[in-house]
Amino acid sequence: MNNKDHAYYLKLAVEESLKSVESGSSPFGAVIVKDGEVIATDHNRVVPNNDPTAHAEVMCIRSACQKLQTFDLSGCVLYTSCEPCPMCLNAIKWANIREIWYSSDRHDADHIGFRDNTFYESDPVQLNRIVLSESNEVMKKWFDSKNKKPY
Amino acid sequence: MNNKDHAYYLKLAVEESLKSVESGSSPFGAVIVKDGEVIATDHNRVVPNNDPTAHAEVMCIRSACQKLQTFDLSGCVLYTSCEPCPMCLNAIKWANIREIWYSSDRHDADHIGFRDNTFYESDPVQLNRIVLSESNEVMKKWFDSKNKKPY
Repeated sequence: MNNKDHAYYLKLAVEESLKSVESGSSPFGAVIVKDGEVIATDHNRVVPNNDPTAHAEVMCIRSACQKLQTFDLSGCVLYTSCEPCPMCLNAIKWANIREIWYSSDRHDADHIGFRDNTFYESDPVQLNRIVLSESNEVMKKWFDSKNKKPY
Repeated sequence: MNNKDHAYYLKLAVEESLKSVESGSSPFGAVIVKDGEVIATDHNRVVPNNDPTAHAEVMCIRSACQKLQTFDLSGCVLYTSCEPCPMCLNAIKWANIREIWYSSDRHDADHIGFRDNTFYESDPVQLNRIVLSESNEVMKKWFDSKNKKPY
């Protein structure tokens, strides 16, 4: 695909972000395309769904996976109105999507009060560890099972 | 709470990870606690749900938010059988959870074939940008709207 094609799909993602605002949700939209076909289009649904993980990219990945009946979106391209936050970037990695196109960035998001840039740069979370031997035993149990599905 | 209490809840998360393996899913479980009360318990459902975002922590956050009817889990503590991957860590940040307890870590996950550590250390994704003026216009439209709900 050339940049004109990419701009076309990116524009669809931006149109979806407008739909999001018009429905009272946050201004983020995403589109997933495979072999030139739009597989899924969705927008941020954090507030209406009471789901802090319901960012546009995550919603769109879930929707594309339902449509294709797989948890592996290899070969898909993701278009998003704004640069993915680190949660979404890593959701994209788990989904095996390798190509992303975006328009606004983390600093634009920062200007309207979203914490994407903060989360990229700092870690407000306190991580504590207690090693229980059972947790690795369970992991080994999975590893030794015959019908495990790695991803 | 003292460490004995934290170990108790962490053990519940590990028990949930065993339930996950026994039901044919991946070996990860999580528990969310608020004021000493277990709000939600869930495990990884990537394979059965065809959802690459359905990690134990994400499922548990979604479930706790449904129970409390909010997208803001401030004051909750998350226990997880294995160190959160970067997707889950940032889902936890968006949910305003500040305290995490875990047992196995990213290297243990690596030993059984999961890519958590790879995603912490490298970026296999190609990020491309085309600036469309409309995307920032939509973001400003949201910012100027009276009933926006920031998070």
